[in-house]
Amino acid sequence: MRRTRLLLPTLRETPADAEAPSHVLLVRAGFVRPVAAGVFTALPLGVRTLRRIETIVREEMDAAGAQELRMPIVVPADPWKRTGRWEAYGEEMFKLRDRAGRELGLAPTHEEVVTLLAGAELRSYRDLPANLYQIGWKYRDEVRPRFGLLRGREFLMKDAYSFDRDEEGLRRSYEAMRAAYRRIFRRCGVEVREVEADAGLIGGQVNHEFLAPAGVGEDLFVRCDACGHAADLEAAAVGGLGAGAAPGPVAATGQPVPGAAPLVEVQTPGCATIEALSAFLGVPAERTLKCMLYDAGGAPVAVLLPGDREVDERALARALGREVRPFTAQEFEAHGLVKGYVGPQGVPEGIDVLADPAVAAGLDWVAGGNQPDVHATGVAPGRDFRIDRVLRVARVRDGDPCPACGGPLAIARGIVVGHVYQLGARYAEALGATFLDEDGAERHHVMGCYGVGISRVMAAAAEQHHDEAGLRWPRALAPFDVLVLPTNMDDPDVLRTAGELEAGLAAAGLDVLLDDRLVAAGVKFADADLIGVPVQVVAGRRGLSAGAVDLKVRATGERAQAPVGETVAAAVRALAAAP
Amino acid sequence: MRRTRLLLPTLRETPADAEAPSHVLLVRAGFVRPVAAGVFTALPLGVRTLRRIETIVREEMDAAGAQELRMPIVVPADPWKRTGRWEAYGEEMFKLRDRAGRELGLAPTHEEVVTLLAGAELRSYRDLPANLYQIGWKYRDEVRPRFGLLRGREFLMKDAYSFDRDEEGLRRSYEAMRAAYRRIFRRCGVEVREVEADAGLIGGQVNHEFLAPAGVGEDLFVRCDACGHAADLEAAAVGGLGAGAAPGPVAATGQPVPGAAPLVEVQTPGCATIEALSAFLGVPAERTLKCMLYDAGGAPVAVLLPGDREVDERALARALGREVRPFTAQEFEAHGLVKGYVGPQGVPEGIDVLADPAVAAGLDWVAGGNQPDVHATGVAPGRDFRIDRVLRVARVRDGDPCPACGGPLAIARGIVVGHVYQLGARYAEALGATFLDEDGAERHHVMGCYGVGISRVMAAAAEQHHDEAGLRWPRALAPFDVLVLPTNMDDPDVLRTAGELEAGLAAAGLDVLLDDRLVAAGVKFADADLIGVPVQVVAGRRGLSAGAVDLKVRATGERAQAPVGETVAAAVRALAAAP
Repeated sequence: MRRTRLLLPTLRETPADAEAPSHVLLVRAGFVRPVAAGVFTALPLGVRTLRRIETIVREEMDAAGAQELRMPIVVPADPWKRTGRWEAYGEEMFKLRDRAGRELGLAPTHEEVVTLLAGAELRSYRDLPANLYQIGWKYRDEVRPRFGLLRGREFLMKDAYSFDRDEEGLRRSYEAMRAAYRRIFRRCGVEVREVEADAGLIGGQVNHEFLAPAGVGEDLFVRCDACGHAADLEAAAVGGLGAGAAPGPVAATGQPVPGAAPLVEVQTPGCATIEALSAFLGVPAERTLKCMLYDAGGAPVAVLLPGDREVDERALARALGREVRPFTAQEFEAHGLVKGYVGPQGVPEGIDVLADPAVAAGLDWVAGGNQPDVHATGVAPGRDFRIDRVLRVARVRDGDPCPACGGPLAIARGIVVGHVYQLGARYAEALGATFLDEDGAERHHVMGCYGVGISRVMAAAAEQHHDEAGLRWPRALAPFDVLVLPTNMDDPDVLRTAGELEAGLAAAGLDVLLDDRLVAAGVKFADADLIGVPVQVVAGRRGLSAGAVDLKVRATGERAQAPVGETVAAAVRALAAAP
Repeated sequence: MRRTRLLLPTLRETPADAEAPSHVLLVRAGFVRPVAAGVFTALPLGVRTLRRIETIVREEMDAAGAQELRMPIVVPADPWKRTGRWEAYGEEMFKLRDRAGRELGLAPTHEEVVTLLAGAELRSYRDLPANLYQIGWKYRDEVRPRFGLLRGREFLMKDAYSFDRDEEGLRRSYEAMRAAYRRIFRRCGVEVREVEADAGLIGGQVNHEFLAPAGVGEDLFVRCDACGHAADLEAAAVGGLGAGAAPGPVAATGQPVPGAAPLVEVQTPGCATIEALSAFLGVPAERTLKCMLYDAGGAPVAVLLPGDREVDERALARALGREVRPFTAQEFEAHGLVKGYVGPQGVPEGIDVLADPAVAAGLDWVAGGNQPDVHATGVAPGRDFRIDRVLRVARVRDGDPCPACGGPLAIARGIVVGHVYQLGARYAEALGATFLDEDGAERHHVMGCYGVGISRVMAAAAEQHHDEAGLRWPRALAPFDVLVLPTNMDDPDVLRTAGELEAGLAAAGLDVLLDDRLVAAGVKFADADLIGVPVQVVAGRRGLSAGAVDLKVRATGERAQAPVGETVAAAVRALAAAP
C-alpha cells in the first residue's frame, strides 16, 4: 500500500478534548476521528487494526466450538421489559420509536434476543451445549463519554452466549471461555488480570473481568498481595462484608446506649465541609459522620459513612439495582434538610437510611445538626437515629483490609477488555426458554455470557504500548507489518530499491506500507514512530551507496543494517522477534 | 463442520408471513430468523453467505483503489439538517434523542459524515481522487417491511464515496465503480441489468441501478428492445417527457376552446369507480379523467390522468421531493370534495393541479361532477380547469412508447442490488467541504456515491437460484462448498469413509459440512437440497460395498459415481464446473 493512496492524516498537535494517551495517539496517528460525543469514524488504519483483533477473536471462538451468528442492533422493547432490563438500563440504553410508535432499543447486549432464539431452536438436550457468538457494534448512552474508544457510546464487541443443560455444564462452558479469553489477550499482546467482579445489569452469580492494567483505566481493581485475591472496586466495595457479617437494621429507640456520650449540639459556623468541621472542632475526619443524600431511581436514600470515606456511587447503584444521583438543592429543601448540615437524627421517615458497617458499629459520632452552622456530637446509632440497612458502599482505599485474608489491599487501574458471566437460568425463566431433557422434562436453559470489547482492546493496546514518540503496536495488532521509508525521493536508486523492497516484503506475505510522499525524511521518521508499525525499513542514498538499508524495531528501538539483497529476510526475522 | 455442532434449524413448512421465495427458503433452510418486522438474526449459514459476498465486494473495491473505513451508525442530526435530508427522509429515517436531548439518527446512508471527513482530511488536490468505502448495517424505517431481506429495516450495505477535483474526474471514478460492480455481480453469480434510474433522496444528475431480474422484484424497470434503453419505472414515469416537451401551466379562462364540446352534467348513479362509469356511459376508460387527491408533505395536490392509468405514487413523491399519501375521508370533506366524483373543474384554489401530458393534450374529458352521482362530459383543460404543472407520474405499462425511440417498452421486475450516483458538489456545498486546488483556489469536492446491498444480494441470489426442493447457491455464495452425506449411520464403514472424505475435502481447501445426524437418509437428502450446497457427496453402504460414492451437483441435478479414492478430486472438479 502506498501512503499517497491512503487516508492517513497524522497530526502534530494533541487534540483539544483528548485526555487518555490512547485517545490522543489514535487520533494523532490517523486511526480514528470523532463524529459526535463518544462516536467515531475508524479510518483505514483503525479498520485494519480492528480487523486483526476481530480475526484473533473469531479464530479462538471457532476453535472453542462457538458458532458465529449476527443479531440485530435495533431490538424490540418487549423481551427487555419481560426481563426487567428495559427499566433497569434506563437512560443508558438508547431508545426510540418506529413510525408505527413501537418501542425499540439499540442493543447494548443481546441476552434477550439470543435466549428467545435458543428457546425456539435449541429444543432438545441433544442441541446442548451450544455457544453462539457475534461480532458487532453495540450502544450505550454513557452519561459522560470520554477517553476516546475506552468509554464510547458506540463500540465493537464480541459477545457470546452459552446454553447448557445444567450448572455443571455451564461451569465447563464458562471455563472453556475463560481459557479462550486468556489465549485471545495473549495473542493480542495485551496484558490482562482476571478479577472477580460485580455482575451489574447483566446479572448472575459468578463473573470475572479481564482488566488490562493502564494508568487511565477507569475501572479500579483491588489486589491482595498476601492471598492473591483480586476484585474490581465495586465488587470489593459491596462484596466487602463476609457472609453473615452484615448486621440487621437498627431502630431509633431513644433509649440510652451503654458507654455512649450524650448528644450535644454545638455551633459550627461555616463548617459545611468535613475538612472545615474537622479543623474547627479538632476532631479527626474519621470520627465525623457523613450523611449523603441520593435519588435512587425515584426513591430518596441517605447513605451514612465515616467522614474520611467517599461513597462509591457505582457500587451504590449496583447494590440498589437502580441509577443514583445526588440530591438537588430543591430536593434538600423539599425534605426539610439543610445541605452541609444533615445529621442522621434529622432524616425524616420516607428516606431509607443506609449505613456503612463502621457507622453501625461506632458511637459518639460528630454529625450535622440539621440547621445551618450547627453540628451535634455524641450521636449514637439506635439511640439517636435508625439504620434501615447496613451496606458497604464506601470506596475502597489502598491499605483497606482484604476481605479474604485481612491483608492490605492495593488499588490499581485497569481497562475492562473482557467480562464473563455465569448467568444461570435467569433469562431463560423470564422469557420461557426451555428444552426437552433426556428424561422428557422441560427445563430452562442454563446460560453464560462472554464479552470482548474489540474497540477497547485496540485502545488498551495503545495504552500499554506507546512512548513519547507514538504508538508501538504489538505485532499481532499493527495495521501494517513493515513500513518502507525512502529518505531521498529525488534519487532514482532509492525509489527503485524502495519499490523492490515493497514488492519483496509483500511476496513474503507481509502487509507493507510504503511512505512514498515527497516530504522531508524527518517528517517520515516522526510519522513512522507515531503510527507504530513494528518494523521500519529505511532506504537512503548514503546506505544504498554501501549496498545497505537500515532496519528499526519500533517497540525496542533496536537498529540494524542489512545488505539490500537480505533485507526481506532480515525484516521477516525482526518482525517474528518483535513483541 | 459437523451438522450436529451447527445451529442449522430447517423447516418443512412455509413460514406464515413469508411471501417471496427467497424469504421462505432463507427461513426454511436456516439462514435467518425474524426478530421484529423487517429485522432478522442471521444464523451461522446466513453469516457464512453474507461474509462470502462481503469478501467479493471488499476484494473488488480494494482492487479499484478504494479504501475501507467505518463510519458510525448513530449520527448527529445537525449535518443532515444542513443538507436538508433530515426533513426529506422524514419518518423513513429512525430518529432518537440521547439522554442530553440531542437529536440523533440511524444512518440509512453516509454522505453527510463522509463529506465532513473529506472536508477536514482531503484538503489538497494531491489527496484526490479518493474513494472511501465501508461495509456495515444500515437502517430505514420502511412503511411496510416485507419480502424478508429484500425490504427490511436493517440491511447490510457496502457504501462508497468518491471525491474528485471536477466533473471529469467524477465521471472517471463513476465508470471505475460501474466496472467494479459488474465484476462483483458476475463473481456473485447474480444476473443484473444496469438501468438509468431516479435519484430519489440521494440526489445528483446521473445514476444507474443494478437490478437483479426476479419475479418478486418490487422495483419494476422498463426495457426497450428496439433501442436498448432501460430505466427504472419511476425514472421512466417522471423521465418520460423529453427535454422541452413539457407544456407550461394552463389557466382556467372559461373561454371557448376550438373543437371542444360543451360541458354537460349527467346523472351517473352509483358510478364512483372508473369501471362503473365507463360501463354506464359506454365511454372507454381512457376517455375518462381520473382526479386523485394527495397530501404531499402537508400540502394538498390533485393529480389528473386518463382513467385507465394509475398514479405511480413513488414517482410522484420523488418528483415533488416529498412523501405523499392519498387524502383521507376527512380531507375530502374539509376541501368540499365528493370522493369518487371529483372533477378538476371543482378543485378549489389552494390545491395544486398536476396533470399528465395526455390530460393536458386532450379534450372532451368525462370527469367527476363534484356532487354525488353526477359526472360531466366535454370537460376541457384551459376552459373548464387549470393545470398548475404538467407531470408524467402515470405508472408505465407494457407497450408504452419508449421515450428514446418511440418503440414499445417492456416491463420487468427486478431487485435493486446496486446503485451508483454522480452527486456533483451538492453535499460539499451544503457542508462547506473544500480542497485547495493546484491554482490555489478553494473548490468544493465533486462527489459520487456507490452502494451494494449485501443482504439483498443474498436474497436476490436465492430468488434467481432455487427450485421446488430449495436453494441452489452459486458456487461463490454457498455457505459450504461440499456437503458430505452418510446414509447408513449404523455402518462403521460408512462413518469412517464420511469422516475421511470430510478431512480430505477440507485438506483440499474446501468448506465442508458433514451431516452426521442420526436421522433417516431421506431427511438428509431433503435438507441437502433445501440448503443448496453446490456439491453433495453421498456415502452409503451399497455404494461403498462397490468402493464408490455418489456425487450430485445441486444446480444441475447431475449425478456421478466416483471411486472412494478419487472422490476428493471429483468433488473439486464438480465444484469448479458448477455455476
